[in-house]
Amino acid sequence: MQNQPFTFQLPKDANPPSVWDNHITRRLSSMKGQYLDQAAYEAMLAQDDTLLYEVYEIQRPHVVGEFLQGVSIVHPGKVGDEYFMTKGHYHEVLETGEVYYCLKGQGMMVMETPEGDWCVQEFRPGEVLYVLPRWAHRSVNTSRDEDLVFFFAYPGNAGHNYGTIERQGFRKLVIEQNGQPAIVDNPRWKQG
Amino acid sequence: MQNQPFTFQLPKDANPPSVWDNHITRRLSSMKGQYLDQAAYEAMLAQDDTLLYEVYEIQRPHVVGEFLQGVSIVHPGKVGDEYFMTKGHYHEVLETGEVYYCLKGQGMMVMETPEGDWCVQEFRPGEVLYVLPRWAHRSVNTSRDEDLVFFFAYPGNAGHNYGTIERQGFRKLVIEQNGQPAIVDNPRWKQG
Repeated sequence: MQNQPFTFQLPKDANPPSVWDNHITRRLSSMKGQYLDQAAYEAMLAQDDTLLYEVYEIQRPHVVGEFLQGVSIVHPGKVGDEYFMTKGHYHEVLETGEVYYCLKGQGMMVMETPEGDWCVQEFRPGEVLYVLPRWAHRSVNTSRDEDLVFFFAYPGNAGHNYGTIERQGFRKLVIEQNGQPAIVDNPRWKQG
Repeated sequence: MQNQPFTFQLPKDANPPSVWDNHITRRLSSMKGQYLDQAAYEAMLAQDDTLLYEVYEIQRPHVVGEFLQGVSIVHPGKVGDEYFMTKGHYHEVLETGEVYYCLKGQGMMVMETPEGDWCVQEFRPGEVLYVLPRWAHRSVNTSRDEDLVFFFAYPGNAGHNYGTIERQGFRKLVIEQNGQPAIVDNPRWKQG
């Protein structure tokens, strides 16, 4: 781990940043129960445990005042009509925000709060997206054939709570309708 | 202030980001005692209270877990041989870092700790610079004729301590030598 301030280059394409410590890969099998069309999910998984997204993380201490940074790459594709997406999570320390900066592709960030507010923001290269404290967040690649690539930074102490979203899902889904991304209610959403 | 997650476009040139709340301008008169060549400083100030840099801030609550974000523009120029630069500061809450992303121009970040470590990092478009917790930081525009433009994000509770740097300066200066930026000792630096 660096003990001096440091710089790194962000990728223009779906490459790693010039500094990274961990490379996380998430495949279809890690998204059990998350996609609306469960039959399409099972059929796809029977063919291949497709790589959905990758994260390059830069290590820092997991404490207040530090930033955890990295680059995520969400690959293009769909499960049924639903676009490839990240697992999505709340921060374990709920009152912590996150800064995203889109580098490539086109996507949407699906967000909601424990109180029932929701918000879906389009996300294009050159844009910063600020996820306020308390908002669960999931990124979705709405492109047909291009990677969605973005930089992220969040507080060192934030932690990840994946469980709540695994149990209840997000209130909104992003699916392809008539060749366009559409935001629809998630009929399987349930408080839990 | 936004009560939902929001996006904003970062400028490609020395323009404001697409969302901002405060516009801060810093002129030569606010840098009294900071430049090495005090005679050059006084002569320049007698001519004009030149605009050195500008900051566009996005407001958020000043609390742990939030991010304060914005865009800074350091104009090109010199006082004597010393490049235009920001005031520079420690965070009031010393154990807080800061993330920078360079959008345009060329510059250096001059940094040091209360313990006497120092570090000067070059800073180019497309690069992230991570200022670790405990490091005072000042940005310097080393270009002859181009603005230095960068995005920043720091913890909502960090605060600014300008006083320590105003009293003691930074251990290192960035000056022009033979037409090139050079990092030199600050003969006026003093513990205080």
